[in-house]
Amino acid sequence: MEEEGGSSTLRVLVATDCHLGYLDKDEERRFDSFDTFEEICSLAEKHKVDFLLLGGDLFHENKPSNSTLVKTIEILRRYCMNDRPVQFQVLSYQAASLQNRFGQVNYEDSNYNIGLPVFAIHGSHDGPTGVDNMSSNDILSAGNFLNYFGKTDLGCTGISKTTVYPVFIRKGKTYVALYGVGNIKDERLNRMLNEPHAVNWMLPEIRDEIDWFNILVLHQKRKKASPSSGVSERLLPRFLDLVIWGHEHECLIDPEEVSGMGFHVTQPGSSIATSLINAEAKPKHVLLLEIKGTQYRSTKIPLQSVRPFEYVEVVLEDQVDVDPSDEATIHAYLHKIVSNLIEKVRETTASGSELKLPLVRIKVDYSGFSIINSKQFGQKYVGKVANPQDILHFTKSGERCKNTQESTNSFGEVDTNDLNKQTIEALIPETNLQLEILHLNDLNSALHEFVNNDDSMAFHSYLKQSIDEAREPGKKPITKGRQGSQNLLTGALSVLESDDEPIESSDPEESGSSQQTGRKRRAAPGGGDGGSAASAAGRRKTDLASFQRAPKKEDDADASKERRTPVAPGRYGAVIRRRG
Amino acid sequence: MEEEGGSSTLRVLVATDCHLGYLDKDEERRFDSFDTFEEICSLAEKHKVDFLLLGGDLFHENKPSNSTLVKTIEILRRYCMNDRPVQFQVLSYQAASLQNRFGQVNYEDSNYNIGLPVFAIHGSHDGPTGVDNMSSNDILSAGNFLNYFGKTDLGCTGISKTTVYPVFIRKGKTYVALYGVGNIKDERLNRMLNEPHAVNWMLPEIRDEIDWFNILVLHQKRKKASPSSGVSERLLPRFLDLVIWGHEHECLIDPEEVSGMGFHVTQPGSSIATSLINAEAKPKHVLLLEIKGTQYRSTKIPLQSVRPFEYVEVVLEDQVDVDPSDEATIHAYLHKIVSNLIEKVRETTASGSELKLPLVRIKVDYSGFSIINSKQFGQKYVGKVANPQDILHFTKSGERCKNTQESTNSFGEVDTNDLNKQTIEALIPETNLQLEILHLNDLNSALHEFVNNDDSMAFHSYLKQSIDEAREPGKKPITKGRQGSQNLLTGALSVLESDDEPIESSDPEESGSSQQTGRKRRAAPGGGDGGSAASAAGRRKTDLASFQRAPKKEDDADASKERRTPVAPGRYGAVIRRRG
Repeated sequence: MEEEGGSSTLRVLVATDCHLGYLDKDEERRFDSFDTFEEICSLAEKHKVDFLLLGGDLFHENKPSNSTLVKTIEILRRYCMNDRPVQFQVLSYQAASLQNRFGQVNYEDSNYNIGLPVFAIHGSHDGPTGVDNMSSNDILSAGNFLNYFGKTDLGCTGISKTTVYPVFIRKGKTYVALYGVGNIKDERLNRMLNEPHAVNWMLPEIRDEIDWFNILVLHQKRKKASPSSGVSERLLPRFLDLVIWGHEHECLIDPEEVSGMGFHVTQPGSSIATSLINAEAKPKHVLLLEIKGTQYRSTKIPLQSVRPFEYVEVVLEDQVDVDPSDEATIHAYLHKIVSNLIEKVRETTASGSELKLPLVRIKVDYSGFSIINSKQFGQKYVGKVANPQDILHFTKSGERCKNTQESTNSFGEVDTNDLNKQTIEALIPETNLQLEILHLNDLNSALHEFVNNDDSMAFHSYLKQSIDEAREPGKKPITKGRQGSQNLLTGALSVLESDDEPIESSDPEESGSSQQTGRKRRAAPGGGDGGSAASAAGRRKTDLASFQRAPKKEDDADASKERRTPVAPGRYGAVIRRRG
Repeated sequence: MEEEGGSSTLRVLVATDCHLGYLDKDEERRFDSFDTFEEICSLAEKHKVDFLLLGGDLFHENKPSNSTLVKTIEILRRYCMNDRPVQFQVLSYQAASLQNRFGQVNYEDSNYNIGLPVFAIHGSHDGPTGVDNMSSNDILSAGNFLNYFGKTDLGCTGISKTTVYPVFIRKGKTYVALYGVGNIKDERLNRMLNEPHAVNWMLPEIRDEIDWFNILVLHQKRKKASPSSGVSERLLPRFLDLVIWGHEHECLIDPEEVSGMGFHVTQPGSSIATSLINAEAKPKHVLLLEIKGTQYRSTKIPLQSVRPFEYVEVVLEDQVDVDPSDEATIHAYLHKIVSNLIEKVRETTASGSELKLPLVRIKVDYSGFSIINSKQFGQKYVGKVANPQDILHFTKSGERCKNTQESTNSFGEVDTNDLNKQTIEALIPETNLQLEILHLNDLNSALHEFVNNDDSMAFHSYLKQSIDEAREPGKKPITKGRQGSQNLLTGALSVLESDDEPIESSDPEESGSSQQTGRKRRAAPGGGDGGSAASAAGRRKTDLASFQRAPKKEDDADASKERRTPVAPGRYGAVIRRRG
């Protein structure tokens, strides 16, 4: 039954990495993250979307300040609470996918008048920590301001398993399975994705005659952008149709096909620049996603409220009018660049719109020159740029090469966040400690939690779990006192804790279904949803509000048949459900 | 017009110092504060009160953990959101008294279905801090879970002024002006209450024919309990009818008349013990307050969920069976006491009710004896008492006397919180610094904020305000650089920053209205509201939704007349409106 007014088209506004509260103590920039989040909410309202979907790092910190929480709640309350009818239903058992005590999607609570539902996963900044494994998203979820999904409690040690239940959504004739995986440490998720049966992707158990669209929202470093680390798209299950990739701040929002995997990836990028690098200087966008049947259309919408950010790179050696023996010429040259950039911003800002002081960053290769005082240089621009204190960033060609090998994103930029993190982690291996109950990786995680998320219980939780684990049958019990401490040294778990870089797999085991290459196209506007019924034929008729596990990998070739009956837990299945 | 079913009786449940999140990392006790808060909410439901009134320190910390916020919001959501009709109205201009961006009482937001409104002030633990002056209550207020009132932004320096607007409530024929003053540092509030015109108590400007009941909720150390510091009841305005005193943890909940002041004080006490002292070992209660016309009835309701707490004091010298030369006899004696206390708790716990491990504290005067290891002593009680690590608290008679002089509550107990605070504050005076722009008191406040509230911006905010103040006309401007720092030394503000202990005033200036002594009685159950119309006669008819300032102190004697017309700002007025 097609309903009136295109009501089989599910409209979703997608944004990620809003980093609410970023620089909330900087007088000039403290409202930036909120301004843009408010713009995003107003775009959701303007485009009459069914819901807003957020890909993690909604908050810049796991423990946002009171002020940040208040501002965030105020914005959500203004935009989400209204009389507009919600025109989609969640068919799946809600408590399986939504992490809140009330076990339901927020707009179904009859005590609230919610017109704009928000679905969100956590990111790397605002993930769950502490004894109760609480994310800042949980606060919003408890207050019924958003639907937090993709939260898993993996524990601290060993190989983890997780089961991912989708939020299964229906609007008219369109069905969407929305999978969420909030940030997990990259190495850990890699290990899990490489391990059979570690991630169970649950499929909705559903009536025969329908087909649906599969979306995964995740928040990880993307191997494509950081070849030396991050998670590869190729480890994701092939039954997906669209992957929304949070964490990477560069806006690569147009969905791009991953060859051989049968899905597209959109990387919306952050809505605020948190590093003054080239990738962040590009225009910021959000994505309007319209899904009809199993086809989708994506429209990128530029964000207007983002603070202007101009970035250039210069090599002093290459400049004819700069004299190494005369510092004044360096100053003059760099000042001229800054002035030009400020002028450029002024010209391009639409008249009538609010003029925010721009961010300006010049990456200066000063090889063969002496460095100049960056803070002093910037004093001239107080009140003219938003970051007078760090306009200049000096590198040497040599350093640049070295850094590129160590930790760079795909643009040869050093990600200072990464450098900090690596320094922390480097501390432990250097001590040559033999840790056998306390696993290095997990100790690293705890240290991370402690430093980055200010989680004073990180070590406590970790220690407790490690000791509990060590007490399991088959391992020597831990006894109290000095003698007992000798017993702490067992090597039983070391095989699980290999520090090896996970292999970037082109997934040869799964080549049985690689014929799917190219089967996904970006759907034409308003395209029909034909083609779904055929391959779906023969599925068992069951209650929509239940799930079955995805078929085992080995069964992929026969997936269309196997799927009819519940099967044993498997890694995931490449679901074939469209005609070649 | 009397409405059906006693609907002119305003029913309020009063609680204070819930300290949500107290000991949230203690495995045994982490849920205590939430259990009791949930009981309080369920009592509000059971007794069908019109609203719940909280007297500060709802949270134990200004920056509660995510887990604490989530648990709190979940409780409020379960009890406050329902279909029960709210049967009172707020007649006053709501934005004047309620601190939230939406400027209205929470149950009037048509997007929320609120059946149990909550009104709350902040306390000393959860007060506003940071650049935006945000309390943890602001988070709940932004999320529409409570009505936060009594918040004032006094700035950091100098004599402060504040205007207190009541929430003016009507239920049937009953009118209540609810004043709130969230915690202000005791010395500062004392200074303000002693200074003419520093506190403006606004009166509702109201139709002639009605009279109303005046309540003040405040959260301060009470001079009566701590004679050397705290705020005296006698500095409060005489027009009040009932003062609800938060902060003091001892339950002295039965309203007590303050002679000569014409009002009663109820001190509900905390709903959780945060110090193991005698005052906290007494049974905890909340207050059911029923107001009809200008009379009220109070009923104390015992809290059942509070963890049992047994407290005894022993003097070893006085015990015949304890031998100073034989430590074993000390152990045996103390163990016997603990066993008896545990047994006592077991016997008195109602069968069928959940048995929480008790708190046990023995204050041991060990003069003439040697101390024993308290932690070791407690090991025997792991799993039997909730605080095995600190059952014993050793004092010497000499020490006890010394402490009593320095910082004790009225029971001769050392308040360890106070001791901590005094240590911090003692740091600065000892350095003999000459601070003339940076005022000692306010530097103390900032240090307090920084240490106790984890407010990393405390010094920044304070410094900014001090410097701004120093830049005012009539003072030497601050210039940058080394030379300029000489100019920081001006003595202009020192007179405002007197460190003198405020005089406990019996308020001779106000004796003109002391004839009111005894005019307040605790109303008989169901008592009428007679006697109100006469003195109220002649009041100007105006819009109910506006305020006028309370008459000047000098006008007190003529208050009943003066009140008819708006008057110049005054300190406060003793409103005479009942027949002798």
